[in-house]
Amino acid sequence: MPIDKEKGFDAKNNSSGATVNQGPDVWAKAAGRALYGIDLQLPGMLYGKILRSPHPHARIKAIDTAEADALPGVRAVLTASDIKKKRYGIVVQDELPLAYDRVRYIGDEVAAVAAVDEKSASRALEALNVEYEPLSAVFEPKAALAQGAVQIHDQFPGNIAWQRELERGNPDRAFKEADLVVENSFSIPSVHPTYLEPIACVASSDYPGNLTIHTALQSPDIVRDIIAGALELPFSKVRIVGPVMGGGFGGRVYGNLKLYLLSSLLSQFTGLPVKMQLSREEEFCIGRPMIAAELKIKMALRSDGTFLARESEIVTDNGAYSAQAPWVSKTLSERNDSVYRIPNIRTRACLVYTNKVPTAQYRAYGNQAANFACESLIDQAAEKLGLDPLQIRLNNCTQAGDTTVHGLKIKSCALKDCLKEAAAKIGWSNRNKNCGYGISAGIHASGSLVANKDFRGASARAVLELDGRVTLFSGEQDYGQGTYGAFTNIAAGVLELDPDLFSLNCRDSLITPYSQGALANRQTTIGGRAVQLAAADLKKLIEEAASEMAGEPVRMEKGRLKSNDGSIMELAAVAVYYHNRTSGLTLTGEGSYVPPPVEYDETSYGNISVTYSFAAHAAEVEVDRETGAFTIKRIASVHDSGRIINPLAARGQVYGGVAQGVGFSCYEGYLFDRGRVVSKTLADYRIPTALDVPHIACCFIETTDPEGPLGVKGLGEVVQVPVPGALANAVADAAGVRVTELPITAEKIYRAISKGECAR
Amino acid sequence: MPIDKEKGFDAKNNSSGATVNQGPDVWAKAAGRALYGIDLQLPGMLYGKILRSPHPHARIKAIDTAEADALPGVRAVLTASDIKKKRYGIVVQDELPLAYDRVRYIGDEVAAVAAVDEKSASRALEALNVEYEPLSAVFEPKAALAQGAVQIHDQFPGNIAWQRELERGNPDRAFKEADLVVENSFSIPSVHPTYLEPIACVASSDYPGNLTIHTALQSPDIVRDIIAGALELPFSKVRIVGPVMGGGFGGRVYGNLKLYLLSSLLSQFTGLPVKMQLSREEEFCIGRPMIAAELKIKMALRSDGTFLARESEIVTDNGAYSAQAPWVSKTLSERNDSVYRIPNIRTRACLVYTNKVPTAQYRAYGNQAANFACESLIDQAAEKLGLDPLQIRLNNCTQAGDTTVHGLKIKSCALKDCLKEAAAKIGWSNRNKNCGYGISAGIHASGSLVANKDFRGASARAVLELDGRVTLFSGEQDYGQGTYGAFTNIAAGVLELDPDLFSLNCRDSLITPYSQGALANRQTTIGGRAVQLAAADLKKLIEEAASEMAGEPVRMEKGRLKSNDGSIMELAAVAVYYHNRTSGLTLTGEGSYVPPPVEYDETSYGNISVTYSFAAHAAEVEVDRETGAFTIKRIASVHDSGRIINPLAARGQVYGGVAQGVGFSCYEGYLFDRGRVVSKTLADYRIPTALDVPHIACCFIETTDPEGPLGVKGLGEVVQVPVPGALANAVADAAGVRVTELPITAEKIYRAISKGECAR
Repeated sequence: MPIDKEKGFDAKNNSSGATVNQGPDVWAKAAGRALYGIDLQLPGMLYGKILRSPHPHARIKAIDTAEADALPGVRAVLTASDIKKKRYGIVVQDELPLAYDRVRYIGDEVAAVAAVDEKSASRALEALNVEYEPLSAVFEPKAALAQGAVQIHDQFPGNIAWQRELERGNPDRAFKEADLVVENSFSIPSVHPTYLEPIACVASSDYPGNLTIHTALQSPDIVRDIIAGALELPFSKVRIVGPVMGGGFGGRVYGNLKLYLLSSLLSQFTGLPVKMQLSREEEFCIGRPMIAAELKIKMALRSDGTFLARESEIVTDNGAYSAQAPWVSKTLSERNDSVYRIPNIRTRACLVYTNKVPTAQYRAYGNQAANFACESLIDQAAEKLGLDPLQIRLNNCTQAGDTTVHGLKIKSCALKDCLKEAAAKIGWSNRNKNCGYGISAGIHASGSLVANKDFRGASARAVLELDGRVTLFSGEQDYGQGTYGAFTNIAAGVLELDPDLFSLNCRDSLITPYSQGALANRQTTIGGRAVQLAAADLKKLIEEAASEMAGEPVRMEKGRLKSNDGSIMELAAVAVYYHNRTSGLTLTGEGSYVPPPVEYDETSYGNISVTYSFAAHAAEVEVDRETGAFTIKRIASVHDSGRIINPLAARGQVYGGVAQGVGFSCYEGYLFDRGRVVSKTLADYRIPTALDVPHIACCFIETTDPEGPLGVKGLGEVVQVPVPGALANAVADAAGVRVTELPITAEKIYRAISKGECAR
Repeated sequence: MPIDKEKGFDAKNNSSGATVNQGPDVWAKAAGRALYGIDLQLPGMLYGKILRSPHPHARIKAIDTAEADALPGVRAVLTASDIKKKRYGIVVQDELPLAYDRVRYIGDEVAAVAAVDEKSASRALEALNVEYEPLSAVFEPKAALAQGAVQIHDQFPGNIAWQRELERGNPDRAFKEADLVVENSFSIPSVHPTYLEPIACVASSDYPGNLTIHTALQSPDIVRDIIAGALELPFSKVRIVGPVMGGGFGGRVYGNLKLYLLSSLLSQFTGLPVKMQLSREEEFCIGRPMIAAELKIKMALRSDGTFLARESEIVTDNGAYSAQAPWVSKTLSERNDSVYRIPNIRTRACLVYTNKVPTAQYRAYGNQAANFACESLIDQAAEKLGLDPLQIRLNNCTQAGDTTVHGLKIKSCALKDCLKEAAAKIGWSNRNKNCGYGISAGIHASGSLVANKDFRGASARAVLELDGRVTLFSGEQDYGQGTYGAFTNIAAGVLELDPDLFSLNCRDSLITPYSQGALANRQTTIGGRAVQLAAADLKKLIEEAASEMAGEPVRMEKGRLKSNDGSIMELAAVAVYYHNRTSGLTLTGEGSYVPPPVEYDETSYGNISVTYSFAAHAAEVEVDRETGAFTIKRIASVHDSGRIINPLAARGQVYGGVAQGVGFSCYEGYLFDRGRVVSKTLADYRIPTALDVPHIACCFIETTDPEGPLGVKGLGEVVQVPVPGALANAVADAAGVRVTELPITAEKIYRAISKGECAR
C-alpha cells in the first residue's frame, strides 16, 4: 500500500497543519533527470584509474612506470615517489595517498594513472610493473593482538589502533549484589553502506592553484579541510561542488578520500580535470565498510528485573587503515548504555589493525551492533527471571529529565510510550502461538556536540530575490532523507509563504556556510534551526525595508506586508527598493544557531549531543524448526523524533531504515578468504529486495524537544538501531534457540536447533 | 619592444607605488588552459542549430518539420508555432525568438533544432522545408525613408526605428553671426566587434523550471532580466554562469539574445542541456554589427577660431531589428559635442529599418564615428582660418569645472595637457615635410547614470576566509581589460595585504551582486568603488571581531592586527574565532556605491555619467600621391583616465584600442550585395594584423577624479574615439585631399587625388 494511501495519513500537511513541500530534488529524481557523480563531464576531462595491491601485506621493491608512461593517450602516471610523503587521516594519520614502502591489504593504492579515455587508463595499469616482496599477514583481530604477530604499522605497536577502558559507578559491587548475572558473546561482521551510486568524482585544478572537486558528500566541508591539509593548499582554495547524491548511509560523510586525493593530484600534474569512479566491486573491496565487532556482554539484575550493571568487552576489526573507525568503536562501546537506566558500567574496547579492507562508518555508527547484543541479553535475563520482555524494558527505560550513566541529558523522551505502542501494534498482548515475537529499544544522538567542540552548530542565509522569491543557502546535505524539503518547509513556515516560492543552494562550498554536514542526525535539528533563524532574520529585514519604503510601520503577517491602514505592499517591490537603494545588495537574513557548550570530561562523561531520539521496534517472525527457514511477518517501528515536519518523508525514512536494518540483521556481512573480499558483488553480498521487506507499521509519538526548530529531533539513524535486537529476540522466541552471530540465517538457526543449544 | 621594457616603465608598481597584480585569469590564459564558451560540455548535452532565411524579405507560407522530426538523433524541432508569440527587445520590442509570419533579412531565424550531435542537427536543418513568398526589400536608409517604401515592421511606420531633434542655445543666430561656416558629409559603414571568440552558450533547464545559461557576457545580469522576461520566468530562476570571455568590445554586453533564447527553449522542450555556437560566418552575417551612419555636419566659427555652433544631420542604418541601436544612435548624435566648448547645437538624427543584418553596438558606442566627422571638419575650418590645428583645439577644449552644452558636469579634465602631450610626442612643432600630421580629441562617459536611472551604482562583498585569505564577490566582468586585476589591487590596497591573498568570484549570477556589467567604462570606476568600500567594511569587521577576541582594542595596520601592547594576531585566527562563535557565518564586508541621482530633462540635458575620460591622439602618416598608398608611421595616444592602477594593463588597453581604431579607420567595414553580407570571413573583412599596427606612443596624464576609487576613470572606450579623426586629418595633411568615407583606403585617396577634390 503506498504510504500516502494509509488510513488517515495526510502527505500534504503535517500535524501542525502546515503545508509540506517535498523539496527541489524530487522532480528531477522522479523524472530520471537528476545528475549524479557518474554523469559528470568537464571539458578536456581525463579518466583516472588506480593500480591496487594484489597482496594483503608486502614490501614494494620497485615500480617500473616507463612502459605505461609511453602508451598513447596516457597523460600521467603517479607513484609515491612523485608526491610528498605526508600522512593524513580522519582520527589518526596512518594513510598516504599512494603506498610508499609497503602495501597492507589487497586493494591498497600503489599507482594512479590519468589518460584520455578509460581504455587507455586501463592499458596503463596493465603496463605497470611492480615488484613486491610478500610479507606474512594477519587477518583476525585476535591473531593480530597475539604476541609476536606481524606489525602492520610501525607507529601502532601491538596493532592496536585505538582502545579504552571505562568504569561508571561501581560495577564490581553491583555484580556481587546482583540476584542474576547473565552473559553471552556476540559477533557482527563488516557491512557495506551499499548506497546505490558508487562513489565518483571529478577533480579540477586550475592555474592559480584552485582545486574544485565535484563529488557528492554528506560532509563536503569537513572533507575539504582534510583534502586541503593533505595537499597543503589553503582551505579556501579547495571547493567542493556536489551533484545529486545517490545515497550515503554514513559512507559518504567522508566518501573515499583516496579517490579525491588521487584525482586531485592527477589534475594538478596534468592541468586538466580528472574523473575517477569506483566500480561496485571496488566499492566492496576497498570502499570502507563498517567495522566488524566481537562483543562479550555481562549484565547484573535484581530479581524484580531492575538493571544493576553491564560489563562489555569489545574487539573491533579496523582493517589496514583507520579512517573514523576509532569514533565508531567508541559509539558502539557506549551509546546503548543510555537506552535504559543502568547505573554501573564497565567497558573495555579495542580496535585492531588487520591486513583487510580499511573500515569506517555506517548509519547508526555501530549503535545497532551493540543493540543486537544488549537487547538479546535483556531477553535472556527476562527469560531467567520469568518476566515479560516488554515489562522489563518499561521498568528500566530512560525517561525525560534523566541524565544517563554516560552523562547524556535527556530533555525529551517518549521511549516508554514508544515501547507500549510498538507492543500494541504487533499485538503483544494477544500473541499468535505459531509465531515468535521480539521487542527492542534504541537511542541515538541528534546533533553531535563533540564531533567538533568549537563548531557545534550551523548557520544559514535567506535572500529575498528581486522577484519576491526566497533563496536559502545552507551547507547541509540532502542525500535522499529530505533535508531540502524540510528546510523549505521550515523557512516557509516562518515567513508564512508558499513553499514553492523557495529555492535552495546547498551543494557548493564556495557559496554555502561551512557545515558539519549530514552526520549525527543534525540536518533538520541543527541545520534546520539555522534556517529557521535566517528566515526570521529575513522577515525582520523585510519589515524594516518595507517600513523605510512606505515611510510608516509595515508588518509581515500571513506572508503579506501590511501597513497600519491595511494597504499591502508586494515583496518584490520591497526587494527592488532595497536593491536600488544599495545598488545591488540584497535583503539577506542570517541565521546562526550555536548550541550550548559541551561539558565533557576525560572519561567521556558528558552531554554529547544537542538532543536524543528514541525508538522501539517489535517484530513478528515465523520459523520452520525443521529447516531453520524463517519469515519476518511484521515489524512495528515507533519513534520519538520530536515533531514531524514532513510525514511522507519521515515514513520513507522509517521504511527504508527498517528495510536496511533487516538487511543488517538477516542478509548482509562481508566474507573474506585470507584477506580477500569474497562477497564483492551484489549477487554475493545480498541486500533485501522489495520482496524481502516485511510489512512495516510506522508510528510517531510526537514530543516537542526544547532544542531544534519546531521541536524536531533526528530520525535517520535511530530508525535502524532497534531492528537487530527485535529480530534476534523474535527469532529466539520462535525457534527456541538464540543466534548470536549476525546475519541471522536459516542455516545458523538450523545448526543451533540441531546442537540443542537452547539459550533461553 | 615589449611594454614592460619601455624606458622607465614599471609594470610591477603604479604611480602610487602600490604593488600590482595582473588578476586571476592571466595565468590560465597564458597557459592555454582557460575555458571559453566553445569548450563547454555538460552531461547529456544536445547540439542546437538554427535554420535561417535565405531571403532579405519574405512571407513564410508553411514550414514542414515532419521529415526533420523523424531523423535519427533529432530531439527537438522548434518553429514559431511551438512557442509563444511574445516580442522582446532591448530598447523596443521588435523581435520574436523565431520568425512567425515574415522574415526580414538574410539570416532571420526560422526554426531551431536540437540533436545528439552537430551532424544530426545539420541534417535536420537540411530536412526542413519552408515555403516562402518573397517580398520586395529595401537596403538603404534613404530608400527606406522614401514614400511608398516597403514597410518592414507594421508597428514602425515609415521604417523609422527611432529619431530625435535637439536644439541647445540659439544655433540659428550663431550661424548668422559666424565669420566662417564649414560643412561636409561623412559616411561610416557597419563594423563588427570581431572579438576573437565567436559567441557560444549552453542552456540547461532543470525540472523545477530553473534555467542556467553558460555563456560569457559583459552584462550577464541585464541579459538575465531580458531572458527571464521573454520566457516569462521569475528572474531568480534564471542563472547565468560565465566561462572566460574571448573579447567583447561591446558586442557581448547583450551577446546574442536569440542564441540564448533558442537554446533555452530547446532545453525546456527536451529537458537536456543544449549547446549553440556561432560560426565566424554567422558572426558576420547575423552577429549584430555596429550601425552604419551618414553624417552631414556644419560648424560656425569666429575668425579667431572660437567654435560658435554645430549642426548635425545623422541617418543611421538599423537593419531589420533594433537591439540597442537607438541608444547607440543617440550617443553618436551628441557625445562629441562635449569635447569642446560649443554653445549652440542643432541635431536631427534618425535610425532607419532596412532588410539587412540587425545592428547593435561596438566599443565607444558610435562616438568614434562622430569623432571622424567632427574632427575632420575642425581641420577644414582651421585650414580656412589659417590656424594651427593644435591651437584651434587648445583654444576651444572643454576644461575641469565646465558643464557642457548637453549638461555633462566635468569634474576633472586634462584634455588640454593631453593635446599638448600628444603634439609633443608626435613632434608637432618640428613636423617632417614628407609626412602628414593629424590631431584629434575625444571624451567618453565613465559610469552611465542613465542606462538605468534607478540602479546607477554597484555593490560588492569581501569575505575573510578561514585561512586568512580574502574572497571578493562582484557582478562585474573581466573580458580582457583587467577588471579582476584592478579589483584585487584595490582591495589589497585598502586592507594592505599581498594581492596574491585575494580570490575573485564574478562569473555566476547566483552568487554575485547584481551589476550593470562591463559597459560605459564602469568596471573600475563604479565596480571598483564598490570593491573598495567592501574591503573597507571588511577591515572594520575584522577589527571589531579581533577586539572582541582579544578583549581589548585591536587595529589593522599595514595588513597586521595589533593590540595596544603591540602583540600581533593572525587574520586566520580571527576568521576562525568568528566562524566558531557564529557556527559558520563569515566576516563579510559589504560595499555599496550609489552615485548621485541624475538630473536629466526630457531633451536629454543633464549629467549622464559619474565621470568622463578624455584623450588626444596625434598621428603621423606617409602617403604615396602617385598610388594613394599610405603608411601610418606613429600614433601618440595620450589619456586622462584619472589615476592608473595597473600601468601594464592600461597600456595594453591603449595599444589594443588604438590598433582597433586603426582597423575602424582604415581596414574594416561591411560590404553588402542586395542585403547579403559579402564580407563574411576574416579574409574578406580585414582587421589589422600585428604588422599593420604602427608604433604607438602611450602616455597618461593622471588626474584625481573625485568619483571612483582612488580617483580612477574609464579607459576602455575613449582610447578608440580620437583615432579616426587623427588619421583622417593626417592623411588629408599628407595627401592634400580629404577622404570622407571610412575606411580610408589607398583607392579612395587615389580617387580623391585624381578627381582633384581637394577639401583643404
